[in-house]
Amino acid sequence: MFSFKNDYSEGAHPRILNALLESNFVQEDGYGEDRYTQKAIELLKGKIGSDVDIHLLSGGTQTNLTALSAFLRPHEAAIAVSTGHILSHETGAIEATGHKVISVEAENGKLNPSHLKAVLESHTDEHMVKPKLVYISNSTEIGTIYMKSELRELRDFCNDHNLILFMDGARLGSALCSEENDLKLSDLPTLVDAFYIGGTKNGALLGEALVICNDSLKRDFRFHMKQKGALLAKGRLLGIQFLELFKDDLFFDLAMHANKMAYKLRDELGSANYKFLTDSPSNQIFPILPNGAIAELQKNYSFHIWEKVDSDHSAIRLVTSWATKEDAVVAFIEDLKKVVL
Amino acid sequence: MFSFKNDYSEGAHPRILNALLESNFVQEDGYGEDRYTQKAIELLKGKIGSDVDIHLLSGGTQTNLTALSAFLRPHEAAIAVSTGHILSHETGAIEATGHKVISVEAENGKLNPSHLKAVLESHTDEHMVKPKLVYISNSTEIGTIYMKSELRELRDFCNDHNLILFMDGARLGSALCSEENDLKLSDLPTLVDAFYIGGTKNGALLGEALVICNDSLKRDFRFHMKQKGALLAKGRLLGIQFLELFKDDLFFDLAMHANKMAYKLRDELGSANYKFLTDSPSNQIFPILPNGAIAELQKNYSFHIWEKVDSDHSAIRLVTSWATKEDAVVAFIEDLKKVVL
Amino acid sequence: MFSFKNDYSEGAHPRILNALLESNFVQEDGYGEDRYTQKAIELLKGKIGSDVDIHLLSGGTQTNLTALSAFLRPHEAAIAVSTGHILSHETGAIEATGHKVISVEAENGKLNPSHLKAVLESHTDEHMVKPKLVYISNSTEIGTIYMKSELRELRDFCNDHNLILFMDGARLGSALCSEENDLKLSDLPTLVDAFYIGGTKNGALLGEALVICNDSLKRDFRFHMKQKGALLAKGRLLGIQFLELFKDDLFFDLAMHANKMAYKLRDELGSANYKFLTDSPSNQIFPILPNGAIAELQKNYSFHIWEKVDSDHSAIRLVTSWATKEDAVVAFIEDLKKVVL
Amino acid sequence: MFSFKNDYSEGAHPRILNALLESNFVQEDGYGEDRYTQKAIELLKGKIGSDVDIHLLSGGTQTNLTALSAFLRPHEAAIAVSTGHILSHETGAIEATGHKVISVEAENGKLNPSHLKAVLESHTDEHMVKPKLVYISNSTEIGTIYMKSELRELRDFCNDHNLILFMDGARLGSALCSEENDLKLSDLPTLVDAFYIGGTKNGALLGEALVICNDSLKRDFRFHMKQKGALLAKGRLLGIQFLELFKDDLFFDLAMHANKMAYKLRDELGSANYKFLTDSPSNQIFPILPNGAIAELQKNYSFHIWEKVDSDHSAIRLVTSWATKEDAVVAFIEDLKKVVL
Repeated sequence: MFSFKNDYSEGAHPRILNALLESNFVQEDGYGEDRYTQKAIELLKGKIGSDVDIHLLSGGTQTNLTALSAFLRPHEAAIAVSTGHILSHETGAIEATGHKVISVEAENGKLNPSHLKAVLESHTDEHMVKPKLVYISNSTEIGTIYMKSELRELRDFCNDHNLILFMDGARLGSALCSEENDLKLSDLPTLVDAFYIGGTKNGALLGEALVICNDSLKRDFRFHMKQKGALLAKGRLLGIQFLELFKDDLFFDLAMHANKMAYKLRDELGSANYKFLTDSPSNQIFPILPNGAIAELQKNYSFHIWEKVDSDHSAIRLVTSWATKEDAVVAFIEDLKKVVL
Repeated sequence: MFSFKNDYSEGAHPRILNALLESNFVQEDGYGEDRYTQKAIELLKGKIGSDVDIHLLSGGTQTNLTALSAFLRPHEAAIAVSTGHILSHETGAIEATGHKVISVEAENGKLNPSHLKAVLESHTDEHMVKPKLVYISNSTEIGTIYMKSELRELRDFCNDHNLILFMDGARLGSALCSEENDLKLSDLPTLVDAFYIGGTKNGALLGEALVICNDSLKRDFRFHMKQKGALLAKGRLLGIQFLELFKDDLFFDLAMHANKMAYKLRDELGSANYKFLTDSPSNQIFPILPNGAIAELQKNYSFHIWEKVDSDHSAIRLVTSWATKEDAVVAFIEDLKKVVL
Repeated sequence: MFSFKNDYSEGAHPRILNALLESNFVQEDGYGEDRYTQKAIELLKGKIGSDVDIHLLSGGTQTNLTALSAFLRPHEAAIAVSTGHILSHETGAIEATGHKVISVEAENGKLNPSHLKAVLESHTDEHMVKPKLVYISNSTEIGTIYMKSELRELRDFCNDHNLILFMDGARLGSALCSEENDLKLSDLPTLVDAFYIGGTKNGALLGEALVICNDSLKRDFRFHMKQKGALLAKGRLLGIQFLELFKDDLFFDLAMHANKMAYKLRDELGSANYKFLTDSPSNQIFPILPNGAIAELQKNYSFHIWEKVDSDHSAIRLVTSWATKEDAVVAFIEDLKKVVL
Repeated sequence: MFSFKNDYSEGAHPRILNALLESNFVQEDGYGEDRYTQKAIELLKGKIGSDVDIHLLSGGTQTNLTALSAFLRPHEAAIAVSTGHILSHETGAIEATGHKVISVEAENGKLNPSHLKAVLESHTDEHMVKPKLVYISNSTEIGTIYMKSELRELRDFCNDHNLILFMDGARLGSALCSEENDLKLSDLPTLVDAFYIGGTKNGALLGEALVICNDSLKRDFRFHMKQKGALLAKGRLLGIQFLELFKDDLFFDLAMHANKMAYKLRDELGSANYKFLTDSPSNQIFPILPNGAIAELQKNYSFHIWEKVDSDHSAIRLVTSWATKEDAVVAFIEDLKKVVL
């Protein structure tokens, strides 16, 4: 049984475990004031820009709820696509901090200025929440990615309407290493107000690096982290991992591998004339397969059945990661061929 | 420079890192539905009782805020001693979920029924919050521990007044392994409604095992965890650690070592006629030293200066842990002697 | 200039003001513990059923947010139609108490079991909020009303799925006095778990009577009221008004008048072959008029332009009330005829 | 039976009821956009200063929770004396919006800079909430008032430490009309960041006028009001009352009368050698009487027994108001004399 269910099925990249081992008995201050965390932050600033603030948190939901509740006043709301993680898979974590999330329908999982314009036009006075923060994911929950020009347009719209642009980067590695991508980490401070770099889904045990670009959002952020339970006593655990991921190109190498495995699956399935639910250039692909073939494949592979397409076909979600073995990909393709014959 | 600042200055016990290494490439489901977590929970149930629910979370503040907000209705409040962690060092995490924490003054850091009675008597009607949950820490924030008879009295009072008794066990290991302790893990379900077993401060990288004993508090708890950002994608990280800590007596051995180091410090300081701020039988001691000696010791040791006692003396806090080396303890004592001579 | 903008453009029915005058110097206890409030509650219980709890609050948003936050645990969500007041016109008041409101599209402003079924089917596990409370308005925000059989079906579905059924009755008077209505106040405890009787929009200065039918929702409700700022010091102000409205049939007489005025408008407009956006049997009607006619009418009448229908026509909202003069209705019709000629 | 229990036992001053009657059938816009409210606000600005923002709300708890939650970020806390209304009698309303209220002990119910200094010194880092808003009441909950010089000192301290100074003015009328007072309404914008003028306890049916002086706190305040259920549909109800109270000196005349009645009680009791719990120059006095006398008086008068003083004596609270009849005061004194003889 091999799992394509997600990109967090294994532990961590061995170099990360090794780094934990090597540093294990060094005494450090707690709560992210250790030297590893400080070094990791300096390293990331070197790649992103010197005037950002960076904080290391444990997971995506925690990062989203801590950041959004810190950035918004009580009457302000976030805007997200209906498939956005904060709307669909975080158990109302944002609402639990008091803020509405306004849902927008979008075919490819991405927001554009016309969506935002429609939201602003329908929120006219104090009887409605005030749309304030634009939440996007890159890559999105359905595998698509944002091009630089798309972010530029969102940025301009947000500037014109005093909106905060926030990028959930739980899978930013896969997005930045996509064959279609034209973005660099160092572009982001000019495009978004805050974003995060997901470690959990790209080789770490856990960890997201939140980057706050907009000065007005930086103040007192550690208070918010502590209040939401996001300051780990052994903050070193996050620092050591990000240090290892970014001291050379490990983070990008891992994302590249994940994408390469997804492309292999996608290309082979494409050659076999299977269609896809979305046109994904990242590490999540959504092929449409006959239900019979799906049932057979489930004997040896685990994956999510995403949605029913017609009475005989469903789209499944295949997720690859830094740990996906090429052998497993090859076997999956072979098994599919057998099943369909 | 050796640190007695806290019990989370190092990484994890080597056996834990080893367990992470060995399991690293096994594929598991996410969010605590992996087999390690399931096994760890079964193991703990074996030691505590079969009818409790157990959930693994990342840290103390996260556990406190997730549990208390799940257990309380909006108008209900917690009661804690003024030195209690939720009152003094969690940045209003409980209040941020909407609940007041009623502060009680207590000399030894412990609540007793007379404190609770006074609180209930002063909260008479709907113009005041309704006191509902009694928050205690064992060991307490100032090193003291609860005896079984004390918990029994609190339990009886809580039964009589329909209160929830919650034990913060961030340092439960040290409490249970104290020379004065008469409690066992398996006693707790008859005494408290919920408690947790702290891993972070007793050899794990991170992790607290929340044990819900009272059936009425169990329902839907994983929803609350997810909503507060407390479900780790790689929940295995917690499961593997608790499995290792409890598959034999490692957890207790580590706590025992921490206490032993504290006792050594305490006894040597006592022999030298130093007084203590509290009479602590656990891994945090609070000796009162001349300010000059403190300044000298700070050159080679780090620790918190807890409070000024008089113009010439202050109490310091020395915390020992699973990782405290006996050599460091001996050296500290020797250095103190030199300093005072 | 005559206003058809809403049903709260005037003060209160003169009998209410008179009742305030007559009772003015009687000394009473505060916070709803006065004798007027107690009598009003007894009177209402006589009409509804003896085993309900009744509380008087100031307005609709306040009642909705106080009730829903009291009834729900943190991870539980409400379900409402997209036009529902809590979704569209309360500035995220429910979300501000921590709860998501799940939006459902429905043509006539009403929920039915198939809507609820779809919501439950798409909320499958702890990564999503738990749908728990069904919010309906009667009459709805677009003037439609619920028939007894429709409520019966919702009730059965809610029973089967352990859901709370809550009815916003800001305009319950108009619904119950509709020519199509087959519901009585005394039917409601068997159909819904809680509902309220709107005074503000039916002749009172302010005031909504919340009726809690389900025993499990009753406990400590006054704590929630106080916490949300909903306990008026001079609670008598609400008690005196509800006493006056219900000591005979004043409440129903006023609603009847409002409906009669709406029907007159509707029938005359219908005779003149105007269409309507919704088929409303209550005090809000939505005729579709030529834009030119609307512009002319706005010179002498104020009303909301509800939505654009095509390039030449828009639907407007005309709201009648206890205070709407028949003369104004006649004049409106006459003026429309002149405008169109 | 005459009640000295509080200053909200009766309805409203007859002029207010009359103003409601006279305006009753004038059609007005809802939610505080009516002409009465606009006029009342202009009138108040004329007395206070032109550059403040003014909003009319229903009650004290509602005003406190709406303002404080609008003014504070999630990690920021209020500071209040332990007797402060938000700490003692609002059912955790502030905490329910997510904010801790830090309690300070003060003998006379008043905060001074030394209290604030101690709070700031004990809140040192992100593990604790950030003290941000200073909540004071004038008159205080125990009848004392702030002198201009005391407010000046608080203002200076707040300026130096970037704190918000907020004055609960539920009984501001009584404070400003006290024989010891040296403050004017127009002084307040230079002294506090926001305050409110209580109508409910000084002759109105309900109503508090919140005055926001500090520009940085003004933005979007009506959104917060709507979200907390504080925008009345018939906002005119508040506007008409404040217009009547302030179009001449009615507000001050009523407060003056209340104080005069309190002074009469105080002076007569003083002459009879009774002591007082606090030295109150406002409309709440706290005489200490023999328990036997109290029991006798309770047959004809209602009042709160405030606290036990010794085994034979208790302090009671006598509250006078705009509606207190001089006859009742005289009778109380006479009855006390009889009782003691």
